[in-house]
Amino acid sequence: MGEWGLLARFLPRLSKGLSGRVNVKPGDDAAVVSLGPRGPQWAITTDMLVEGVHFDSRWTSGEDLGHKALAVNLSDLAAMGDVIPRFGVVSLGITPKIPVNYVDRLYKGFEKLAKYHKFDIVGGDTVRSDRIVVSVTAIGQIRRRNRVILRSGARFGDILMVTGTLGDAAAGLAILTGQVTAEPPKAAAFLERRLLRPEPRLDLAKRIARPGALTSLIDSSDGLWRSVRILCAASNVGARIQAESLPVSPALKHWAKDAGKDPIDYALTGGEDYELIMTARPAWARVLESRGLAKAVGRIVPSGEGVKVLDDEKERRIPVGFEHFS
Amino acid sequence: MGEWGLLARFLPRLSKGLSGRVNVKPGDDAAVVSLGPRGPQWAITTDMLVEGVHFDSRWTSGEDLGHKALAVNLSDLAAMGDVIPRFGVVSLGITPKIPVNYVDRLYKGFEKLAKYHKFDIVGGDTVRSDRIVVSVTAIGQIRRRNRVILRSGARFGDILMVTGTLGDAAAGLAILTGQVTAEPPKAAAFLERRLLRPEPRLDLAKRIARPGALTSLIDSSDGLWRSVRILCAASNVGARIQAESLPVSPALKHWAKDAGKDPIDYALTGGEDYELIMTARPAWARVLESRGLAKAVGRIVPSGEGVKVLDDEKERRIPVGFEHFS
Repeated sequence: MGEWGLLARFLPRLSKGLSGRVNVKPGDDAAVVSLGPRGPQWAITTDMLVEGVHFDSRWTSGEDLGHKALAVNLSDLAAMGDVIPRFGVVSLGITPKIPVNYVDRLYKGFEKLAKYHKFDIVGGDTVRSDRIVVSVTAIGQIRRRNRVILRSGARFGDILMVTGTLGDAAAGLAILTGQVTAEPPKAAAFLERRLLRPEPRLDLAKRIARPGALTSLIDSSDGLWRSVRILCAASNVGARIQAESLPVSPALKHWAKDAGKDPIDYALTGGEDYELIMTARPAWARVLESRGLAKAVGRIVPSGEGVKVLDDEKERRIPVGFEHFS
Repeated sequence: MGEWGLLARFLPRLSKGLSGRVNVKPGDDAAVVSLGPRGPQWAITTDMLVEGVHFDSRWTSGEDLGHKALAVNLSDLAAMGDVIPRFGVVSLGITPKIPVNYVDRLYKGFEKLAKYHKFDIVGGDTVRSDRIVVSVTAIGQIRRRNRVILRSGARFGDILMVTGTLGDAAAGLAILTGQVTAEPPKAAAFLERRLLRPEPRLDLAKRIARPGALTSLIDSSDGLWRSVRILCAASNVGARIQAESLPVSPALKHWAKDAGKDPIDYALTGGEDYELIMTARPAWARVLESRGLAKAVGRIVPSGEGVKVLDDEKERRIPVGFEHFS
């Protein structure tokens, strides 16, 4: 039974019996809690990275790992909208053989990203393990009450949009695992970095998260295709994704040409870019595009019409997803 | 380099550069944060349990594990004083081979203890791992501002006290690992349960945590001897522990007699009882004893006199500690 099966099995149970202090229950990018109607609202999220499952220490430096373990949590906060990252804790399982220098660099990775986002790492636990395990919990403050954007708010007629470019991290992973060419070198380096040093889109989230205008939000950790299906299921809608409108970086284009790959396959199903995927009312979508904050890649349709990808009006077959590397 | 070495190496770094929102920095049982002088103060803590290091799934049921993973975190909250447990998240690394029923029971363990303490588990992450890893983060609300009791407040003249009984969990561990006799069965069952189902002392903490009267507080997760040394180092004081006054359960006494062991060795160095260890001004210590909330086991002396255990005035040699079982 995989991660998804287990989560699906226990989510309803986790959500049952929670107190009125829990405003957004488990199942979104982060939970949202508050002590009362006047106090601040907090977003809380946690993610665990396991060596050999989520990263390979042969090509993930200590600093990469520290950066990424924190970044994926901050990305979950960004996916709730206008959230100020505040406090976090870090649990670390390490093998006795691990060079102290690796752990040193790992903390460096945490510190640098935390400092950049004015985020306080207030504690942690360090235990013995036979593989490196990093578990981070991040707590953010919702800047203004009732400004949380959930996965479940997409409506028929909304525009489906994304930030940044898609597919880069999946290409970086293919390169690092030696499945494909690493040419041209500059493009390959860019793609690898997109995998190893994702940048949580907190600043962008703040600028796009206008309640009523932005109707739903999720991060792209699972890739566009999977994330859109999750968002549509939560919102009870369908979607039409226009393959030709997916934002693809010049690096991905160059590399894909050399590698004989279709960059759109990567942009559609490749995960770990940690961009934001959202739905916006058409007027707000035009504003976001004109400001260069997000790009329209499709539209929301009624639930019965399902989630489909179109290539010039023709439905595109989705290749089997790029899952975690092992 | 062990857990302790690494923690000692990185704690000063973790504490550097934190914002003014962090009121108690890493290094106590929990960190304490707040957004401003008027809002609530929060205690945050995290602990990770790794299969084969902190527990053995052959004799730790799913429910035991869920209970304990949450209990050790709630114990950290109790060790900050008068704290209301509020919100938590759970990250779970599980092997593909693990029976679904084990995970089911694990959640059951979380749920039951969370419900008892009116604690909301608001989210989590489930990932693949080759051993079971459970990481819990717990957040509590300090009931009244400035009511946090730290490890660092012990003063010369204070009375050293503990709640409950000591050494039970270590004896339970010795029994479960087959090192010693499991007779008499009722005593053995009690001792095993003390290891597998620790009860966080949140209610007791609330009743004993009078600022100015209770001067320092820590939980006994690392055993009395080690915890008192940590507390004394943080407070820059020494201590005299009276071996004959250590609270030992009837079960530990009966079992130790059958096993040919000295129960005081267990009470001194055995960890994982998750009782509270504290120092109190003498007047408050008398109140705590008369109410049966805690028992005096020694006194605080100047730093230069060190931490020593006395058997009828004679210094007692400390046996090598009972570390994690593997």
